Amino acid sequence: MGIVVQKFGGTSVGSIERIRNVARRIREVHSQGHQVVVTVSAMGKQTDELVALAGQITDDPSPREMDMLLTTGEQISIALLTMALHELGLSARSFTGWQAGMVTDAVHGKARIKRIDTEKIRQCLDRGEIVVVAGFQGISEDGEITTLGRGGSDTTAVALAAALSADYCEINTDVPGVFTTDPRIVPQARKLDEISFDEMLELANLGAAVLHPRSVECAMKHNVPLVVRSSFTEEPGTWVKESVTMEDTLHVRGIAYDLKVARIKVLGLPNRVETLSRLFGLLADAHINVDMIVQSEHDAEVIDVAFSVGEDEWKQARNVIEQNRETLGYVKVISETGLAKVSAVGAGMVTNPGVAARMFTALTDAGIRIKMVSTSEIKISCAIARERAKDAVRELHTAFGLDVNIQQEVPSTVGV
Amino acid sequence: MGIVVQKFGGTSVGSIERIRNVARRIREVHSQGHQVVVTVSAMGKQTDELVALAGQITDDPSPREMDMLLTTGEQISIALLTMALHELGLSARSFTGWQAGMVTDAVHGKARIKRIDTEKIRQCLDRGEIVVVAGFQGISEDGEITTLGRGGSDTTAVALAAALSADYCEINTDVPGVFTTDPRIVPQARKLDEISFDEMLELANLGAAVLHPRSVECAMKHNVPLVVRSSFTEEPGTWVKESVTMEDTLHVRGIAYDLKVARIKVLGLPNRVETLSRLFGLLADAHINVDMIVQSEHDAEVIDVAFSVGEDEWKQARNVIEQNRETLGYVKVISETGLAKVSAVGAGMVTNPGVAARMFTALTDAGIRIKMVSTSEIKISCAIARERAKDAVRELHTAFGLDVNIQQEVPSTVGV
Repeated sequence: MGIVVQKFGGTSVGSIERIRNVARRIREVHSQGHQVVVTVSAMGKQTDELVALAGQITDDPSPREMDMLLTTGEQISIALLTMALHELGLSARSFTGWQAGMVTDAVHGKARIKRIDTEKIRQCLDRGEIVVVAGFQGISEDGEITTLGRGGSDTTAVALAAALSADYCEINTDVPGVFTTDPRIVPQARKLDEISFDEMLELANLGAAVLHPRSVECAMKHNVPLVVRSSFTEEPGTWVKESVTMEDTLHVRGIAYDLKVARIKVLGLPNRVETLSRLFGLLADAHINVDMIVQSEHDAEVIDVAFSVGEDEWKQARNVIEQNRETLGYVKVISETGLAKVSAVGAGMVTNPGVAARMFTALTDAGIRIKMVSTSEIKISCAIARERAKDAVRELHTAFGLDVNIQQEVPSTVGV
Repeated sequence: MGIVVQKFGGTSVGSIERIRNVARRIREVHSQGHQVVVTVSAMGKQTDELVALAGQITDDPSPREMDMLLTTGEQISIALLTMALHELGLSARSFTGWQAGMVTDAVHGKARIKRIDTEKIRQCLDRGEIVVVAGFQGISEDGEITTLGRGGSDTTAVALAAALSADYCEINTDVPGVFTTDPRIVPQARKLDEISFDEMLELANLGAAVLHPRSVECAMKHNVPLVVRSSFTEEPGTWVKESVTMEDTLHVRGIAYDLKVARIKVLGLPNRVETLSRLFGLLADAHINVDMIVQSEHDAEVIDVAFSVGEDEWKQARNVIEQNRETLGYVKVISETGLAKVSAVGAGMVTNPGVAARMFTALTDAGIRIKMVSTSEIKISCAIARERAKDAVRELHTAFGLDVNIQQEVPSTVGV
């Protein structure tokens, strides 16, 4: 038996009783003969409470000091969970991010993992101890405490699984698995038994809040099988892995949405080779994640570029662009908030033009205006007005035949 | 101008408003041209709340995991205080114990500082930054997070002042200085303008909760001038330093008490050279602090030994003795809880037999039975029943002429 990494989110450790429950789940896996590494988030709303404390002092906290503040949340969880494991008679030891050798870059608030020095963890595992690692945090090369950003505990878990060549990584959360869409919006949504990394990545990126996209990227890159399951039930969950049984048949596997989207249009840019790389290079330097990008050519001299960002980043993105007006040489920048993105996700989509047509038809029939479109091999996304997002999800879930109990194939001949 | 170390206790940083106030106090000292290092405790009752959380999981938490848990309290304080300093336009940077180079031994829960690697702190000071260090915590040589035990933030402050050769160390607390005794018991108690290290050490050890005894020891050893003052007023406080103006004249400077005392009697020990060193060696190995010791000789063969310990340690002390019954070779062990200790403290006491006599007379006249006595060069302590402790403090405060407004000398000719 090899190593298993188990991750438990904030809701799963939200109370002392729940922490005890998590300890029993860990014992279950450990008693099967696995070596177990656990990673946990902060208890319940603790991170939000710490953010609120800082908010009483300043509107503009230093990212370094925010990391100092927020990393205490997970440190509390690991200590309490380890005590609960001891109470069950198990040997266990907690590690902060820096103790676990979680080395990151120095970008406070959204650091990326550079490597994990797993020596200490392996020593503990070899002694038969359960290792409990604080999620979401690391240490930079020069000894600064960093955080991976919200949702980063998933990434901690997967990175540990990759570094330790774990058999699999179990993501325990407050939902029983990955659904065809958000069951709060579409009651007929169904739980998937399995899904490919690619599909999960699109779902994660598109706001299906089950897994942090970086964790899926990391799992895909290192081929770590994931299982997403509920901390509170015995249901088997959804497996996320490289190849999924029916992948060569086209399926729209799910409908995802993201309610916090903003669009920025940069008008009158010079039509030159370096324009796009310069614009998006500046945004990347400011660590702003750009999502959809649409470019339109006016004439030989001038182009317009529109792109979408998370709504919490549009101000920063706009500032970056305005501060570089001279370098970029544009005429005007326009931003629009209050948008959402809905997406149909499924393998093999690119070879089926019918899917896009069906999506556009369903939205148009419902009177929903499409503001931007982007496509990949396995998804089609549309930016729309936020107030129509939930209608759109319901329409698409029905249009792609996901409402029924037995999963149906989308006939590949359908469409325009 | 040199370095000043300022320490703020839990009450001083008990709310966001108080943290802002502390930031202003720091600015004051910084604006005088000093380089400033600050150390803080956890906010208000936070440590108690964390202890209570652990208590919901286990009655017997691992000391290592308790340290992991409790050190988050100070980490929150340093981040918030540093943000508050930034809001005042000051450059500041927070450090956990391990980041500050606070190297301790590996005794979780009551680690002792071995050395401070001050390089990082000095770099910050040289850049003009205010350095904010988490009190109460350190790191062992093998990378384990440790705590110095309750009240350890004072020790952190003094140790930093010693390592940095600071001009002085300011202990900001919730009282305006060191008093002749506890003003809650004796309203006529007076604040002292200055006191010697020796006297302060006895007062600290004897339960006057103003300063942690280890911090006074450390200050004395490294000759760091201390000033104890209130975070909330502008009063000048009490200076604790090597030589005090009137030290060659005998003064009873104050009456101290400790309400949590237990006594253990070990009866019928063999009267051999190694008996005492063996007994107290075993207790020291278990990190139990023994206070008063009384030995009585029955005959050439047998001795009895009685000693006092803090009430929270008597069970452990008794266990150690019972587990070593064969080695020690005693007949019987008896323990008694519910005791207190009252002490008169002042320089030059040993040369004045009148002081002891006056103390015993005052207690006897009040009908208070003395259970144990111990004396040092600058104090006399008596163990008595706890329910009479406050009466005893009042009686002694009056008997030694401390009630009046102008400090009177104790006539050295008085008494038996």
